[in-house]
Amino acid sequence: MKIAVVLFDGFELLDVFGPLEMFGQLPDWKIVMVADKPGPVASTQGPCAWAEESLETFVCCDVLMVPGGKGTRTLIDNPDFIRWLKRAALGTEYLISVCTGSALLAKAGLLDSKQATSNRLAFDWVTTQGPKTLWQSDQRWVQDDKVFTSAGVSAGMDMSLAFIAHLYGQEKAQKIADYCEYHWLADPTEIDCQSPSPGSSD
Amino acid sequence: MKIAVVLFDGFELLDVFGPLEMFGQLPDWKIVMVADKPGPVASTQGPCAWAEESLETFVCCDVLMVPGGKGTRTLIDNPDFIRWLKRAALGTEYLISVCTGSALLAKAGLLDSKQATSNRLAFDWVTTQGPKTLWQSDQRWVQDDKVFTSAGVSAGMDMSLAFIAHLYGQEKAQKIADYCEYHWLADPTEIDCQSPSPGSSD
Repeated sequence: MKIAVVLFDGFELLDVFGPLEMFGQLPDWKIVMVADKPGPVASTQGPCAWAEESLETFVCCDVLMVPGGKGTRTLIDNPDFIRWLKRAALGTEYLISVCTGSALLAKAGLLDSKQATSNRLAFDWVTTQGPKTLWQSDQRWVQDDKVFTSAGVSAGMDMSLAFIAHLYGQEKAQKIADYCEYHWLADPTEIDCQSPSPGSSD
Repeated sequence: MKIAVVLFDGFELLDVFGPLEMFGQLPDWKIVMVADKPGPVASTQGPCAWAEESLETFVCCDVLMVPGGKGTRTLIDNPDFIRWLKRAALGTEYLISVCTGSALLAKAGLLDSKQATSNRLAFDWVTTQGPKTLWQSDQRWVQDDKVFTSAGVSAGMDMSLAFIAHLYGQEKAQKIADYCEYHWLADPTEIDCQSPSPGSSD
């Protein structure tokens, strides 16, 4: 399995590296970081990740992952990127997004008539990007066939484990959570009572 | 506040980026990634982070963070690095480690006569690196004065929030956890019942 992660200026650190910690425990998975051009890409928090492949040279993968972060607010108005995303998704078996990454998938029409979710703090903004999407505000993550979308930041780790469970079974996913000493919220309806309500404050 | 994170080949992704997601929410904090030389540094899971500063040119910081990962097994036998760590810690107010990062701190003598913890799966190996350390196997993280050490991988996020609570109060830390939709295990004695027992299987 080859998973490609799309990086862009202002991606959210944990949106990318939470899921990759989980996927990185699968020995036959290859992780590729893709960005506008190869090299360092700055996160919202400052630290840079390293992209080894450019959007232009990228061919295909089994899983395409789109994180969120403040950078999605700019990227959403970049028609070249949205076109790239649409085309890249064609050759991909699974699409997954974390946080406001689902706004980008929605804008590319990849969530039309599909159930999906996003960061609850940015819900009003995200949902306007996909008027044909069946948005769910009361789920930590949503699976609709081959598309997995998660709520904000840490919910991406819970969704990633659910995705691993979908592919390899619950026991394998729990083993990875245990290895990472991660308290997996394995029930997508289990929204932490302290989590903010859906809105547009972010 | 300036926090420096030490990167090395084979660092564990979430050991670094879990805490940095939390610290990255503090607007007056500057995060610096330090490694043997500037450039991409490969994690245990494959993806690279980007170091902007070299160990040689590094001057000082308020917080020095040392992650774990398979690379600690090699780094522990690198006397130049251990000497660097000892010297760097002299100009630092707070020392924090995640997972097997505490083996490196211990080897440098920085945990002598201090209470500390580490990854439960690597506990036997880690504890031999610090015979004068007061190792605690039943804690998710341990604070001893200005030194915070955590158990494996995800425990680093819980410790980071506890560190933020130590500096700015519980409410601020909980606000960050909520923003990240993170289910903070705020009680260090709350070891997930599915977590493995201390041992040497890793």
